[in-house]
Amino acid sequence: MRTLLITSHPDMIESGSQQYFLSSIKNQEDITIHHLENLYSKREIDVVKEQELLKKHDRIIFQFPFYWYSGTPLLKKWQDEVLGEGFGYGTRRKPLAGKEFGLVMMIGVAEREYQAGGEELFTISELTKPFQAMANKLGMIYLRPLSVFQFFYMEEEQKMNILIRYWQLLTMEKDISLATREEWLIEQLQKVAEHTTETGTLTFAMEQIQENRVKIDELKMVLDDMFLE
Amino acid sequence: MRTLLITSHPDMIESGSQQYFLSSIKNQEDITIHHLENLYSKREIDVVKEQELLKKHDRIIFQFPFYWYSGTPLLKKWQDEVLGEGFGYGTRRKPLAGKEFGLVMMIGVAEREYQAGGEELFTISELTKPFQAMANKLGMIYLRPLSVFQFFYMEEEQKMNILIRYWQLLTMEKDISLATREEWLIEQLQKVAEHTTETGTLTFAMEQIQENRVKIDELKMVLDDMFLE
Repeated sequence: MRTLLITSHPDMIESGSQQYFLSSIKNQEDITIHHLENLYSKREIDVVKEQELLKKHDRIIFQFPFYWYSGTPLLKKWQDEVLGEGFGYGTRRKPLAGKEFGLVMMIGVAEREYQAGGEELFTISELTKPFQAMANKLGMIYLRPLSVFQFFYMEEEQKMNILIRYWQLLTMEKDISLATREEWLIEQLQKVAEHTTETGTLTFAMEQIQENRVKIDELKMVLDDMFLE
Repeated sequence: MRTLLITSHPDMIESGSQQYFLSSIKNQEDITIHHLENLYSKREIDVVKEQELLKKHDRIIFQFPFYWYSGTPLLKKWQDEVLGEGFGYGTRRKPLAGKEFGLVMMIGVAEREYQAGGEELFTISELTKPFQAMANKLGMIYLRPLSVFQFFYMEEEQKMNILIRYWQLLTMEKDISLATREEWLIEQLQKVAEHTTETGTLTFAMEQIQENRVKIDELKMVLDDMFLE
């Protein structure tokens, strides 16, 4: 899986959070870092080149500061020109269909304010509808976004946690939720194995999980029933 | 009431709909037309001048083509810079509080597509949440927007109708809904008068309505009660 990370920030060098995230993924073969302000300081976007680049990647990520609940001016210009008629819409064949799309947003206000009754009034899911609609129009799969709230108030451990989520969004296949559940379930089974004599059944269950990811939930239900009896 | 109409379009001269609307409001004293691409062709926004201009107006309107469900790049730059820290947020005194805010959007896709099950998936109300959140943050009153769907497919009469709604959004005081209700109610009362002998009461009611707009709803309830008995 190849990821295109399109970053945009009116003042990237001054942004500590952007630097923190970007420095963590240097020299990764599968990630193309594509910083719009660096590439297009004169704001003349090479539309054909950008479209070719998009086609070569499987996952497209927009990374930007969430000023006024939206992307940056240059990112919007990129959207309007690169995803123009004949590529982004008005064409029967959608060139980006089936690819994945995600957002990484640096947000200055606390998460709790993004809800009815909070100072920002709406949730991040509500405020990012224009991006969801874009992914829909392009036939892309919209991923869970990464919202980084008040990075500078974070403890070191919180920063590391968010960095892991960042790496996951950039590099981990979308079936991670299933794989994670699988790992977690094996761990749980191993704990159970320490306190039961039914080791034969458990060993068999663990082998089955490793062999067959798809049936994991059904298997878990079978095991639940077995231990309930 | 003074209205500031902030228009932005990457190619205003080529836009027939923009020209149609703007040419209809030339030489109107109470409307300041403020075309960002004309004023800031080099993209260096005079932040202080813009902030002073905002303060001098009672109603602020953004007019733009609804590309990718959002404003234009230059409008976003204007938002980020003019409504920056100390003016747009991070200040106890909100300089734009109590003023009205509205949107005029030129939209290329048919209205019916903007709903669940439609091709655009979301409603205009959902897609404009970032602007609603902005008005909320600034303490401004968010007006019903004017969404102009597929202007070029419109008949002359439709165009005239939408033009009247445009003028209303730019110049009519917000209590229009009450005034309209008032007219409507007088009409209803006149119809009733044709079929009743209680003309004295009705004449009195109509006079009261014309004299006192605020009490119109209460008066209607009184009349309802009278005729129910």
